[in-house]
Formats: sequence, structure tokens, C-alpha cells
Amino acid sequence: MSTTSRTVHLKSRPVGMPKVEDFEVRETQIDDPKDGEVLIRNIYMSVDPYMRGRMHEGWRPGDALGGGAVGKVIASRHPDFAEGDYVLNSAGWHEHLISNGGGISKVDPELAPLSTYLGVMGMPGLTAWGGLLVTGEYKDGETVFVSAASGAVGSVVGQIARIKGGTVIGSAGSDAKVAMLKDEFGFNHAFNYKTADPLTELRRGAPEGIDVYFENVGGVQLEAALFHMRTFGRIPICGMIAHYNDSEGHLTPGPRNLSQTIYKFITLRGFVVSAFEGQRAQFLSDMSGWIKSGEMKYHETVHEGIDNASRAFIGLFTGENNGKMLVKLADD
Amino acid sequence: MSTTSRTVHLKSRPVGMPKVEDFEVRETQIDDPKDGEVLIRNIYMSVDPYMRGRMHEGWRPGDALGGGAVGKVIASRHPDFAEGDYVLNSAGWHEHLISNGGGISKVDPELAPLSTYLGVMGMPGLTAWGGLLVTGEYKDGETVFVSAASGAVGSVVGQIARIKGGTVIGSAGSDAKVAMLKDEFGFNHAFNYKTADPLTELRRGAPEGIDVYFENVGGVQLEAALFHMRTFGRIPICGMIAHYNDSEGHLTPGPRNLSQTIYKFITLRGFVVSAFEGQRAQFLSDMSGWIKSGEMKYHETVHEGIDNASRAFIGLFTGENNGKMLVKLADD
Repeated sequence: MSTTSRTVHLKSRPVGMPKVEDFEVRETQIDDPKDGEVLIRNIYMSVDPYMRGRMHEGWRPGDALGGGAVGKVIASRHPDFAEGDYVLNSAGWHEHLISNGGGISKVDPELAPLSTYLGVMGMPGLTAWGGLLVTGEYKDGETVFVSAASGAVGSVVGQIARIKGGTVIGSAGSDAKVAMLKDEFGFNHAFNYKTADPLTELRRGAPEGIDVYFENVGGVQLEAALFHMRTFGRIPICGMIAHYNDSEGHLTPGPRNLSQTIYKFITLRGFVVSAFEGQRAQFLSDMSGWIKSGEMKYHETVHEGIDNASRAFIGLFTGENNGKMLVKLADD
Repeated sequence: MSTTSRTVHLKSRPVGMPKVEDFEVRETQIDDPKDGEVLIRNIYMSVDPYMRGRMHEGWRPGDALGGGAVGKVIASRHPDFAEGDYVLNSAGWHEHLISNGGGISKVDPELAPLSTYLGVMGMPGLTAWGGLLVTGEYKDGETVFVSAASGAVGSVVGQIARIKGGTVIGSAGSDAKVAMLKDEFGFNHAFNYKTADPLTELRRGAPEGIDVYFENVGGVQLEAALFHMRTFGRIPICGMIAHYNDSEGHLTPGPRNLSQTIYKFITLRGFVVSAFEGQRAQFLSDMSGWIKSGEMKYHETVHEGIDNASRAFIGLFTGENNGKMLVKLADD
């Protein structure tokens, strides 16, 4: 017996903005698990901006893609996993996978909904938590500006700062998202970066300057943040989505005022979430507490079916998503 | 009795590149020192890039300028200073000054030549030492790239790294300076940024990448350094001389590849020399040792007379100087 499954492959390296034609869904037959293996049916998969970088360097045309996913064990010959267990795995973009138990870990659907392990309880949540508190050295009560604030990472950054007594300013790409930041996520000030001047808005929302700018986008917002940083300000660089689809010879100009760092002793520091792996237990404890108390809110944008995975991914760069972008691959 | 002295005043805020007409030399009469005061005749004064920033924000048109200077006590009614003492003071751009002892400190001409207290033994030396070892967290044997490498700060940065067993790459603005970096300051590799491609040169001089980029200039060299940094690389930002003469609306574009910081966990951190004040004793001990052993070399470019002070300052931005730029105000 075997299981029919589908997987998304990279067909060609995207140049500039990715297109649906850069991806290809292939059908494959998966054998039953052997001794020491489990068969997993993925329920949710994640699409994330970092995947754009891997499509440029890492994955090659023809390769199957991967990423975060949550699935259900549907057959087990592994002592540590039982049929019906839910597991986090890194075989996103696959409907099914065989695992020998390496790189998968059980998640508890009673603690938080399954999908949140790809969001606030997962990589985006840990990215926000570590980027703000560890890399950004955020201290209770400080003033934080976060760009892409309605996204999976940004909305958590702002809420953590708010929970810890800070003043929070966020930017997003539509008036509806801006309203959501203020009304739902409790941001003190928010603006639409497509229609408002970032520096004017920062001055309005934080007359005395900002201590931490959580950088998700690059471009003019970084420039405005540098102008409006306070002495000893920190800029954890999580992403620069404005630059991800740059191609050789067509690079978006960087901030023209990096010399602001000098007299203000500003630190910019890049990071990826792996830096905080050792602090995951603390993170899960913090986050589950905030979810249960109702202090931490989250949104999800869910596309249905593996055929729509590439569209979901492209939507990350066109501002289509509201909160964590997911693809639902199975009902359970 | 009184002393006739001259002082340089800011006549108008420079727009873009400073011009001689932005400055004015005024004559003044200085009274004899009262009880608790000393009269100092300055011998050397320093001109430094940071002064450009103060001319934009800080000094106002009409103000007398200031900066580092070394002078001789020519009359004293202060218990701690005797006629003939040499003192460091912050009344550069002045031929004479009256001091109550605050902000002046004796220097020992036996330890190192008087002028070096404005150079390798002074602010530029401490800037290089602290920027590389403290802000840049340089570890023995690492690979360092420094721009403006033939300047007062850059040449010391490169030599400290070399003394500490590192591989050193430098850039400068003429073939003569490049030759000097290699032949005299012991750089492993050097290039003329006006005629060579920085990234190509970095790959040539440091095939495995650079650990620390000591940033003095901004612009394309920062971009090349970001591309060629190793994981966990550090970029202490000392200056961005390419941007100092930017005026509103005419800002030089910044690096287009700051997203390099993310996967490489790169830190950029601005600093000014005041950050290292608490470590000055260690610095003086290190530096005097290196000067005496002959390991630390230095150059000076000396203009004569206060009438030429503004020309000396402007020369900083046209690449005229070779090493520390000084103005000699008196023979002794």
C-alpha cells in the first residue's frame, strides 16, 4: 500500500517578484512507514518571507520546497509517536511526509490552536519575542516602532512591548490594517506608510524619539527611524521585505542617513530566529500565558489547498495577508 | 598688560563642501590671568571631520570655533600649573586662551612628541583603539578592513590589528597612499577606492571574508564590506565622510544591501570617542609602548598659522591630508 501525495517544487528561480509559473506541484507515491518511521499528513503549512532568500540561494530549480508545517501522525512504527499525535515538522509544501522522528516535535492542541504553532506560538512568535527582547534589548516602558506591524511578526512585537508597558507605534500598508493596529492590537499610534510620511508620524506618535525600531521592511521607514532614534537606540533587523525581490543591478537604495548612528550610538543588528533556540521554553511559557489571558491577539490568512501555496507565498510580497499567512492542506 | 590673539569664527553655516568664506579670523585682546588662572599659547591645533557636524548643528554663525589643541603655559596664577608646562586643551582655533584649569591636562613631551597628543596619543588614537577593540570587539588574528586607511584614525586601526596578529586591508584615495599603507604601515592588502572595485579587492585581500569593517566613509565601500562580511561580523561606525557634506535634499544613497546583516548576524554600531574615556589609561599605556617599540608609525600634515586653519579643515574633505591634519600656531 502507498499514499498519493503532492509536493510543491521550485521550477525556476524567481527574478524580482515571484510568479506562479516559478512553482510546480508534482504528485508522488509515499510508501508505508518502516520500522522506526511515522507517516504524517500535514494540516497547515506556513509561507514566510525568508523563503524568498532560499529560492535565490539554497534551493535549486527542481528541488522540493520545505518550511514549517503542523501535521497529524496517521501511521506510526516509531516508539515515541502514536497515531493521532500532532507534530511540528519542516516539510511544509508537502501534503505527506515520512519521518524517522528527527526534526519533528509534538505540539499540544489543548495549549493553543494547532495553527498557532506556525504563528504566535511558533517561528514568527519566537522571532518577535527574541528580536525585541534579546537582540533589541528592549527594556520595560521603552518606545518601540515596528514596521509591517500587522504581519505575523510585527503584530506580536507591538503587543509584547505594549504588555510590557511601552509606547508602541506601527506602520502598515492599508487604512484597514492601521485601524486594526490601534483598535485591536492596542498600538498607541499607527500609520499607513503608503500615504503618510513616516518621519512626521514618528514625531507625532513619539515626540521624544524611539528606543527600538524593529526593522521588517528597509527603505524609507528605516531612514525615518534613524532620524528619530534616541541615543543608544537599537535596531534589530529582522527582515527587509522591501529589498527581498531586488535582483542584481536593481537594488533598492539604502538609508542615506546611517551617519545618524554615530552621535546617537545606535546599534543595528541582524538576526534570524535560530539565535533564540535556547530560549524557546521561556518564550512558550510567556506566549501561552499571554494568549490565555487574552492579552495577545493574532490573525491568520488561510489559503486552501496545496495548489494555492505559491499564490499564498506571492501574497506575502503584495501585502495581501492579514497576520500569519497559512495554507490549509487537510481538515485534520 | 594684555596679549593680542586671534581666533577663527564661523561666519556662515557651510552648505555642502565648506568654503574659506564660511570662516573669519578675528583679533582680540586677552587680559593677564587672574588668581587661579593660566594663560596658554597654543602650539598645535587639530582639525577633524567631526567639526563638520557641529557647524551644522551646535555652533552658530558668529561663534568662535573650538577643538583639540596643545599649548604652553606662558603665565600662571594657578597652583597646579607652572610656566613652561605643556597642556592639552579644547580651545583649538584660538592662538591664546585663559583657563581656570578645568578641561586642560598636562602632557609629557618626553613620552611622545607634543603633536602626537592630537594624533596617535590623542583623540584619533583613542578613537581607533576603542573603535576597533571595544566597539568592534576585535579578537587577535581576525581580518579587518578599514577605509580612509591612511588617515589619522585609519592608519592606527590597521596597525593595531596588524600588531595583534590580524590580516589588514585598507583603502585610500591615491596610489601613493596605497603604497604607503603597504610599505610603511604594514597592511597586507590595500587599494585605491577611486580606481579599483572595492568588492573585488576585498575578495582578493581576504578570500575568506572580513570580521571587522572599521567604517570611516560610507557609500560603496560599506556596501562592498557588507557583501563580504563573515558571520557575526562587526562594523563600528566611526565616520561617514562621504556623507558629511550632504545637504538637505542631496543625500548620498546608503548601502543597498543592509539585508546582508540578517543571515550573517552582522552588527553595525555607531560611536564617538567619548565612549572610551574610562579606558584612556589603558590606551595611553598600549600606544606609548607601540610608539617606543617602533611598531606604531604615524604621519602628520601641518599647515602654518591660524590664517590657514580653514584651508586645513577643508583639506580633510578633499583628501589632501596624509595622516593627522594639524595647524601650527606657534613655534613653542
